[in-house]
Amino acid sequence: MSTGPQRTAILLAHCPDQRGLVAAVGDFVARHGGNIVYFDQHVDDSQGVFFMRVEWALDGFSIAPEAIGGTFADEIAGHYGMTWRLHFSDERPRLALFVSRLPHCLYDLLSRWQGGEWAVDIPLIVSNHEDLRPVAERFGIDYHCLPITPENKAAQEARELELLRAHEIDLVVLARYMQIVGPALIGAYRERLINIHHSFLPAFAGARPYHAAHARGVKIIGATSHYVTEELDAGPIIAQDVTPVTHRDDVDELVRKGRDLERLVLAQAVHAHLQRKILSYGNRTVIFD
Amino acid sequence: MSTGPQRTAILLAHCPDQRGLVAAVGDFVARHGGNIVYFDQHVDDSQGVFFMRVEWALDGFSIAPEAIGGTFADEIAGHYGMTWRLHFSDERPRLALFVSRLPHCLYDLLSRWQGGEWAVDIPLIVSNHEDLRPVAERFGIDYHCLPITPENKAAQEARELELLRAHEIDLVVLARYMQIVGPALIGAYRERLINIHHSFLPAFAGARPYHAAHARGVKIIGATSHYVTEELDAGPIIAQDVTPVTHRDDVDELVRKGRDLERLVLAQAVHAHLQRKILSYGNRTVIFD
Amino acid sequence: MSTGPQRTAILLAHCPDQRGLVAAVGDFVARHGGNIVYFDQHVDDSQGVFFMRVEWALDGFSIAPEAIGGTFADEIAGHYGMTWRLHFSDERPRLALFVSRLPHCLYDLLSRWQGGEWAVDIPLIVSNHEDLRPVAERFGIDYHCLPITPENKAAQEARELELLRAHEIDLVVLARYMQIVGPALIGAYRERLINIHHSFLPAFAGARPYHAAHARGVKIIGATSHYVTEELDAGPIIAQDVTPVTHRDDVDELVRKGRDLERLVLAQAVHAHLQRKILSYGNRTVIFD
Amino acid sequence: MSTGPQRTAILLAHCPDQRGLVAAVGDFVARHGGNIVYFDQHVDDSQGVFFMRVEWALDGFSIAPEAIGGTFADEIAGHYGMTWRLHFSDERPRLALFVSRLPHCLYDLLSRWQGGEWAVDIPLIVSNHEDLRPVAERFGIDYHCLPITPENKAAQEARELELLRAHEIDLVVLARYMQIVGPALIGAYRERLINIHHSFLPAFAGARPYHAAHARGVKIIGATSHYVTEELDAGPIIAQDVTPVTHRDDVDELVRKGRDLERLVLAQAVHAHLQRKILSYGNRTVIFD
Repeated sequence: MSTGPQRTAILLAHCPDQRGLVAAVGDFVARHGGNIVYFDQHVDDSQGVFFMRVEWALDGFSIAPEAIGGTFADEIAGHYGMTWRLHFSDERPRLALFVSRLPHCLYDLLSRWQGGEWAVDIPLIVSNHEDLRPVAERFGIDYHCLPITPENKAAQEARELELLRAHEIDLVVLARYMQIVGPALIGAYRERLINIHHSFLPAFAGARPYHAAHARGVKIIGATSHYVTEELDAGPIIAQDVTPVTHRDDVDELVRKGRDLERLVLAQAVHAHLQRKILSYGNRTVIFD
Repeated sequence: MSTGPQRTAILLAHCPDQRGLVAAVGDFVARHGGNIVYFDQHVDDSQGVFFMRVEWALDGFSIAPEAIGGTFADEIAGHYGMTWRLHFSDERPRLALFVSRLPHCLYDLLSRWQGGEWAVDIPLIVSNHEDLRPVAERFGIDYHCLPITPENKAAQEARELELLRAHEIDLVVLARYMQIVGPALIGAYRERLINIHHSFLPAFAGARPYHAAHARGVKIIGATSHYVTEELDAGPIIAQDVTPVTHRDDVDELVRKGRDLERLVLAQAVHAHLQRKILSYGNRTVIFD
Repeated sequence: MSTGPQRTAILLAHCPDQRGLVAAVGDFVARHGGNIVYFDQHVDDSQGVFFMRVEWALDGFSIAPEAIGGTFADEIAGHYGMTWRLHFSDERPRLALFVSRLPHCLYDLLSRWQGGEWAVDIPLIVSNHEDLRPVAERFGIDYHCLPITPENKAAQEARELELLRAHEIDLVVLARYMQIVGPALIGAYRERLINIHHSFLPAFAGARPYHAAHARGVKIIGATSHYVTEELDAGPIIAQDVTPVTHRDDVDELVRKGRDLERLVLAQAVHAHLQRKILSYGNRTVIFD
Repeated sequence: MSTGPQRTAILLAHCPDQRGLVAAVGDFVARHGGNIVYFDQHVDDSQGVFFMRVEWALDGFSIAPEAIGGTFADEIAGHYGMTWRLHFSDERPRLALFVSRLPHCLYDLLSRWQGGEWAVDIPLIVSNHEDLRPVAERFGIDYHCLPITPENKAAQEARELELLRAHEIDLVVLARYMQIVGPALIGAYRERLINIHHSFLPAFAGARPYHAAHARGVKIIGATSHYVTEELDAGPIIAQDVTPVTHRDDVDELVRKGRDLERLVLAQAVHAHLQRKILSYGNRTVIFD
């Protein structure tokens, strides 16, 4: 029974598919006095994996929040070999935005934060250029310019990691950052590092996708948000969208139309992540709705 | 654990929302040896109603198929005040198609049947005109022409009902039938009578929606499939889709573009119905995916 | 022959359809040494009206810019009974934004201006509430709070008109203003006053469209931008877009998804207006592409 | 001035961009007493090429239809170096359909023909399998089964060409033919040979695109229609469309959803071709609307 904005626990889990999983988890919540407000599961037949997202109201739940994880591990997860994460609806994640020179995604994310769409903090913007410092100042956010050269790449990445730790960042968003992120940062923020690529991947991976789309004469262009992995533009896809184009659209017009896609698709991915609706497995994502 | 095309039971249910529903149903299936291959639920907070679709493999299930309904009623449904329906994946529903003069939706439905997309039988076509009899003959289907006048409307509707019963029809599809269906047929086929309306309802209900759309100068047109109820074009919506139009599109061009929408949106609705993915409640639908 | 960002003249015209119009306008440009970079026309058969947008490079054109209008009137427009407007590609229109309490469209428009997407000035924001003054200050824009009551409506509208004149405003954008605009402002800014309505008009005109959409159980929601006329939500439509929704989406979620539509559809309309791509006729628009 | 379904001439042309083209063509039509019902042009700045589609009513036109081409060549095309084609609105093109085992595109095309959507003849179906012969018989169309092996490929292709010539075929449509077409047929039907590929090209070119899409975990799938050229899946794109997919969609479900895309996108391409709205240049298309 759900009665609106109350505190909830959110459990994301996957394990080898087997009998009784729905009953076991449903029983765990019911037995301890919880009321389920969201329950969705997915079975990937080809891999034999069970995925689940369950959310329940904490009001009346007999286990203290800080003990839920341990109890779940003891009673359920261990038995079924589950990999799981537990969140609470009143967490307030801290975001860092990495940008380069293009402001459209940055403005879009900042306006969702300032407009109250997302319950997050955004204490840090990192860039390889000075261009967008005025935007950061306008919104009162720390701005660090760390220009990248082949020589200083590793050192700058180390400074980035320090900044992320110092600001206790939970999620890094590459808002048209235009730089290849190094392995240390990828490893530290696995499944917490979201990029927007300006094509419908896997088409037009790499540099200058709008030029490539124009040269090929496609009738739709797209954008793709994904978790960053070691392989460029090949991480698990979170969201994609497209828009029609015509012969009238030169590259500049593709870039213009694409900006709206990039804004939307990046925001969709961040929103799904913040809602704890994403499970990543192999190179694919389960996006609960 | 799912291993592909095996025989399954499909349960659709709704009841007042209350604690323990997921656990109870999950336990029912598990306790009797079933393996859940699909489980989805939805809670409508505003109405306090719980909706559920659960599908499990019958292989190894300890209750005989013909006894599942009774057992579920005794053990679960009665206790929680559930309204429920039980289906089996190997049912082969029988469809009747009602048409008028336009062939596009008719051809589309017939080709999905003939092409093996749907495991159905289509033994009956009813029309108020003779125009499409050659299409019926081409596909070897009984065709009954029952012209409707204000005077004979009730009598013709009675004949339609006889035909539906004689052919043991499970689902009636109005494939651009263009006649207002009478209350006896609506009552006999409640939630089993699907219509396609050529606008994005509730805009442009009633006659000549493409003319109305053109006059209003809209930039998108749509189509809507819905269960038929006593109120014209106001039944529970199953599927909708739209397509962009421009100032270049005169009414004839709207009609042309609309045909593709009508085909698709009607087929989507019939497909969801055949997959037992629709729960109707009040004037709304829950479409499990 | 077009060679990129050079100064151009843009002519928008309509007149009763008649023979020789394309030849006459094409000849006018060619005879005076202009090179056409864009030529599109549309004939509305049902009304017998010819619409045209032609754009030509001024480099090498033998008529001085300030004399083009007069020469065109003498040589062409008078002869064919044309209604026409002449623009130049280097005009920099001045926009006023009217807002209420919701910031998302405001931020979106401001970021397009600040990000250099649009060559405009935005010197003025008017609101009936104080809420968004901090946003205006953040971007250094004059903010005037003119609360509206039934008693002061006419007087406040007069002040609005004064402000618009004082700031030499060319285009007024109602960015979720939530107030019915009075006839004086509508008259003064005819075809220069753009509104965003949060439904796919003509469905759900008036107040609380997301609530109405939820109650009806639609499977798509939309947004519509239009020029404001005396009849509420009934002016010529400029752009519309939609997004799918499901039974899972309560009203709050419709509002959330709708915000992205509103941002995009309002920006599309403003962009088309700024590009001088819109001709309005009766209650319909021709949007050249 | 247009007054509906009258006989028209349709001219498609491209040439190096230069001053006076619109005026010259507009004057040609006007001088000989024609009334333009459609005029659209496009300048590709990057290549310096001018494209044009002009359609005018023949009623009152002073040049006999069979002499229009010659006169246009003499008066206009030669002077400007134009490549051009002339069509008349009452032509009735003859189509051949190449199929394999999947019937959905075949049924869709046949129903558009039988339903009167297209003014064409379809006298010939060619396949490498017997499966769809009953469909051809149902519609009374010649069906030729020409199985392809590496050894007989050239010989069978020669037979195909004979059949196409014997039936005076104007346009060949590969309706999920699943065979690589040989160079003789491509050469004989250049820009008159349309294929449907079941992905949003250039992603997932080649075999088994739905499997590849599933493996990559994309959130949209697409279909692409294009003119066939010597390079596989790389010809000029005519139309593309996409549909969203989720983690729930296994390969079979992608195939199912994709069928609707394939039907629509192939029909869109054939329709545009029949309307004489396509100009191909390099590896790109101009699709007039």
